[in-house]
Amino acid sequence: MTASPFDHPILGRLLGDEELATYFTAAADIDAMLGFETALADAEAKAGLIERSAAEAIRAAVEGFSPDLAALAEGTARDGVAVPALLAQFRRALDPDAAKALHTGSTSQDVIDASFAMRLQGVSLVLDRRLEALVSALTEWGLKDGDRTVMAHTRMQAAKPVRFARKIAAWTDPLVRCRLRREEIAPRAFALRIGGAVGDRAGFGERGEAVARDVAQALGLHYAPTALHSERDGIAELASWLSLVTGALGKFGEDVTLAVQNEVGELTLEGGGGSSAMPHKQNPVGAEVLVTLARFNATLLSGAHQALVHENERSGAAWTLEWMILPQMAMAAGAATRTALDLVPRLAVAETTSDVG
Amino acid sequence: MTASPFDHPILGRLLGDEELATYFTAAADIDAMLGFETALADAEAKAGLIERSAAEAIRAAVEGFSPDLAALAEGTARDGVAVPALLAQFRRALDPDAAKALHTGSTSQDVIDASFAMRLQGVSLVLDRRLEALVSALTEWGLKDGDRTVMAHTRMQAAKPVRFARKIAAWTDPLVRCRLRREEIAPRAFALRIGGAVGDRAGFGERGEAVARDVAQALGLHYAPTALHSERDGIAELASWLSLVTGALGKFGEDVTLAVQNEVGELTLEGGGGSSAMPHKQNPVGAEVLVTLARFNATLLSGAHQALVHENERSGAAWTLEWMILPQMAMAAGAATRTALDLVPRLAVAETTSDVG
Amino acid sequence: MTASPFDHPILGRLLGDEELATYFTAAADIDAMLGFETALADAEAKAGLIERSAAEAIRAAVEGFSPDLAALAEGTARDGVAVPALLAQFRRALDPDAAKALHTGSTSQDVIDASFAMRLQGVSLVLDRRLEALVSALTEWGLKDGDRTVMAHTRMQAAKPVRFARKIAAWTDPLVRCRLRREEIAPRAFALRIGGAVGDRAGFGERGEAVARDVAQALGLHYAPTALHSERDGIAELASWLSLVTGALGKFGEDVTLAVQNEVGELTLEGGGGSSAMPHKQNPVGAEVLVTLARFNATLLSGAHQALVHENERSGAAWTLEWMILPQMAMAAGAATRTALDLVPRLAVAETTSDVG
Amino acid sequence: MTASPFDHPILGRLLGDEELATYFTAAADIDAMLGFETALADAEAKAGLIERSAAEAIRAAVEGFSPDLAALAEGTARDGVAVPALLAQFRRALDPDAAKALHTGSTSQDVIDASFAMRLQGVSLVLDRRLEALVSALTEWGLKDGDRTVMAHTRMQAAKPVRFARKIAAWTDPLVRCRLRREEIAPRAFALRIGGAVGDRAGFGERGEAVARDVAQALGLHYAPTALHSERDGIAELASWLSLVTGALGKFGEDVTLAVQNEVGELTLEGGGGSSAMPHKQNPVGAEVLVTLARFNATLLSGAHQALVHENERSGAAWTLEWMILPQMAMAAGAATRTALDLVPRLAVAETTSDVG
Repeated sequence: MTASPFDHPILGRLLGDEELATYFTAAADIDAMLGFETALADAEAKAGLIERSAAEAIRAAVEGFSPDLAALAEGTARDGVAVPALLAQFRRALDPDAAKALHTGSTSQDVIDASFAMRLQGVSLVLDRRLEALVSALTEWGLKDGDRTVMAHTRMQAAKPVRFARKIAAWTDPLVRCRLRREEIAPRAFALRIGGAVGDRAGFGERGEAVARDVAQALGLHYAPTALHSERDGIAELASWLSLVTGALGKFGEDVTLAVQNEVGELTLEGGGGSSAMPHKQNPVGAEVLVTLARFNATLLSGAHQALVHENERSGAAWTLEWMILPQMAMAAGAATRTALDLVPRLAVAETTSDVG
Repeated sequence: MTASPFDHPILGRLLGDEELATYFTAAADIDAMLGFETALADAEAKAGLIERSAAEAIRAAVEGFSPDLAALAEGTARDGVAVPALLAQFRRALDPDAAKALHTGSTSQDVIDASFAMRLQGVSLVLDRRLEALVSALTEWGLKDGDRTVMAHTRMQAAKPVRFARKIAAWTDPLVRCRLRREEIAPRAFALRIGGAVGDRAGFGERGEAVARDVAQALGLHYAPTALHSERDGIAELASWLSLVTGALGKFGEDVTLAVQNEVGELTLEGGGGSSAMPHKQNPVGAEVLVTLARFNATLLSGAHQALVHENERSGAAWTLEWMILPQMAMAAGAATRTALDLVPRLAVAETTSDVG
Repeated sequence: MTASPFDHPILGRLLGDEELATYFTAAADIDAMLGFETALADAEAKAGLIERSAAEAIRAAVEGFSPDLAALAEGTARDGVAVPALLAQFRRALDPDAAKALHTGSTSQDVIDASFAMRLQGVSLVLDRRLEALVSALTEWGLKDGDRTVMAHTRMQAAKPVRFARKIAAWTDPLVRCRLRREEIAPRAFALRIGGAVGDRAGFGERGEAVARDVAQALGLHYAPTALHSERDGIAELASWLSLVTGALGKFGEDVTLAVQNEVGELTLEGGGGSSAMPHKQNPVGAEVLVTLARFNATLLSGAHQALVHENERSGAAWTLEWMILPQMAMAAGAATRTALDLVPRLAVAETTSDVG
Repeated sequence: MTASPFDHPILGRLLGDEELATYFTAAADIDAMLGFETALADAEAKAGLIERSAAEAIRAAVEGFSPDLAALAEGTARDGVAVPALLAQFRRALDPDAAKALHTGSTSQDVIDASFAMRLQGVSLVLDRRLEALVSALTEWGLKDGDRTVMAHTRMQAAKPVRFARKIAAWTDPLVRCRLRREEIAPRAFALRIGGAVGDRAGFGERGEAVARDVAQALGLHYAPTALHSERDGIAELASWLSLVTGALGKFGEDVTLAVQNEVGELTLEGGGGSSAMPHKQNPVGAEVLVTLARFNATLLSGAHQALVHENERSGAAWTLEWMILPQMAMAAGAATRTALDLVPRLAVAETTSDVG
């Protein structure tokens, strides 16, 4: 119970994810934003748009730069974006020529979208690694218990016995497909979105493509031929992906809560949660949380798609909505994969399974 | 103003789509369901699971079959699915052997999911054709007016002039990407979902894969190695795609409503809507509707992802939710593409564009 | 499986509601719109704004008026609203003086919002009557079985035995509160929204308040001192109410599906749905559908609140979104109350209830 | 750009709210939870359920208690709720008799729901005070400029001139109604939800009502005759209220962004946000953020209503979802009221307004 479930001192270990949280700190954001400015300066020096010495000065100044967070927050409250205040601060660490060369032809959205893409790409790779681990853990369980017979349930009624391998497959296959999907959407979701003030790369003169390609390569992002400032389909698509991940695990969680019901007892769960009133209980907390996280992301997904209605060349309203939604969806996917990885080894097919029907 | 905006005698031409509506009639559904049963019987005859004569009798009986819709509705109200009632009716048109062979090893969900996939695949192809036409129409407009200068607006303020080609690209590129995405998701969204009572294809004995492959081929659907009864990621992904289509067009519509404001006058729109109180007005009705449809699908998308929490081997609750959502999202995408195709040729860059700033 | 689950020949009896559907036909809409014009003419005659004879002619002409639906649909596709086309048709049934007097000082939104409010108020009264019946049915069940002991479940685990009356109360009390809430929101949700072209009632001269009061009284709507054209909080609030109704019944449905699980058997359900593959099953179809309808309305509710961002004096985009959402939410609440009323008498506390724990 | 926009060092001043944040700290939560335990002990001593000395010892121990947050977080990760770990810690500060008396007849949900209700009630009062201030500020503006003439816009087109007072009313009236609504929903939203392990207050013997009444009075919450553990309509209703607040301000923000467009210039905004690329711009950042926050809450609202499907006597999945959603909706309403209060004094009707039409 806190404004943010993810960073809360009490709830954070239930609903948050320490590893993914590192991608959403102020420091990580600032590092990525300055990383963009450095890469931009390098590319512009190579393209002859600024002096090489300026680019070197920028790179050097980043090393020792210590941002004034309060001033960044104040600037963001005024400007709606942190970039003007960040640049003002950073320019004070530069000589006049480098200060002038900094951010040449660029705009706040270039910086913020690049930082967003870099960090969300990192998040996606962490999630991908965990999906791989989950697939392995479930597959291993299937190898062990796949031939056991459990009761299938359709429409909440016992149906017919099936091999446990069927359940393993229903939990595993969507995760495998999510790994494939990540590769499909990467060029759109993790593209460098760079275009300058109004998205036409006019500030880079004739060298727009070269600059964009070099910056993309330096930052490990995909090159896109246009600015994508106002085309947010790659972002909405990433949100859909995050919801597919939590949705697949929500189905797994729901199945577990049903299977470990005392009356069903198809699965057993070691180390369930305790109750303040009923010491005999073993609550399937992790499995329930998987359902919660799935419903949370399915909820937020709607807002990510509302943000597709991004008016004109840059929408403050729609863009800011992305900032409120995507990091949370990423954290929810982090918490879900973390929770599922914790849950699988504690689950087992019960020695005696029900044979209703 | 009607329970369904899509089929309504008054609103239907504003918000509906005649071509796509054909995919969602009772007749289209019944045809597809019987198409599945026919293909299944053929595949099972080939696999030696039923007599060839039974398959032929089934195919022949489909020809003359005239369903009793009232009885189907009654059966659906009772069973939650139309299939038991449909089969009961259809069996009366068959000799006892064929009646017994019909639906061998299958279950209601096989039938309904197949019909759903067949029709939604058809819808996606109509939408793809329209996206292609929209890309052409916008590209043509860009060839004509791309070099004109218009004012770019960021954060709802005039920014700097840009070539009109920038706007054309921002409207066109997401549509091109949606066409690509359709191909990526097709094997998952338009897969044959067949598995029998509890999804293990046990009713087809050793011939499960062969039967599934043959039915998929006959119906033009993608083959999947498992039943996918309870793995709904392909469906949720299709919903995301439909929302990406309407979202891209919603951005276009929003831009148009802003550009045709009297005070802005960057674009002109021929044939706007009239007012009962103010005859001088030319309302950008189509452009507004594009925004409406984008927000509608972004809303519904959440429900499609909630349905990922599909418990056990078949969830009546989650499955039925898909039926309430996907067809509507498809219709909204139909209405959006239809409206955009109508809108583009009526738009023009104004002779004198504003030069604020 | 159809674009609209509510009106579909096959699904309509599962997911629709015949009684509520009558509020959403084209005929009901046209009747209400002409009812508004008649009441307006009467009020304006009384206020001296038009001739009494014109008002009488308008009232008389409504009797024999037979609308051309195709022309209305065409007009709506062009104008975004049916009113201009409706008035054009209806004026042909009037002499020139009455034709001129018709709709004096009014605008399309007055007409459409009035029709919407009248019909949704009617819907709310039907729902209220059904809520009352549900409360009665559940209370009666409680009187009969309230002292029986059943197992309480917390976090999906058997907890401790409780009197069945606890469950009855948890299902009933939210319905009682929904009846109270309907009365609270009625003055805002079912207000007459009348203001003329730009919402200032300027077209009624000094007699704006008198006209608005008389029209509201004639139509059985609540009087509001301002136009409310662009203030949609009463509509969003009604949407929330409809979702509270379906949500309360969704909880009931979910509890039923859990209690009638074969392994739990706390409740029995007479007349469950049949399966095409497993004749032994009795599926709790109605209970599942209650969950579906709750999730459907919780999904749509988001769109109703998105429509609060209703720009300027009238937003085509936000207003049209209400038309796509509210009637559907009303129908879902209709289907849920109808389904619950059908379900309760078929439920019973099982003779031997489980005593886990 | 952070997992939580509200608490972030950079974004917090744009999207957060310092005053409301105090309600969502771990300290505020723990204080409220221990406040509940103290009030419960007092009430139980009065009712003769525990010794008066035990109640006094509990009250005294709260004074000096310093929670171990890391242990609370660990316990929450295990149990899904903080209460078992909190009680374990707190009992170490009590003598054995008091330790035994603590939490008598209660359960985790009693504690957490009470803390939630206390803090959200406090939030609602802060918001109410701000709504009052906003109504005053807008009314004052209306007194000053209400007779000025501005252009009304319908369907994004200039319509007819209106008095500026019309706009003031459209922005103000929904806020007035939100204040009224708060009073209507308070008895349901800010009720004490107390029931013990399975919600029947059995742990309080015959004294359940007396204990509940006394605890409610001590905590300033409304008394409810039943536990409300699994009836979440009061929570969902509060979520709707929060979205009505942000929605009303989102409409205001949208109107401002449209009115301050350079080409429209109906309103002027002092102190707009700056741009890193275009120093001439004055971006209406606050107005845009109001739209963002409205869309954010409209998005989250869906999840709050999904949580109505709260299975059996306590749903871990649905309950946890509330924790992820309600505090964020409250913070968004805080940020919106704060932003609007900042915005109004900076707005003015432009000296020369457009007179299109």
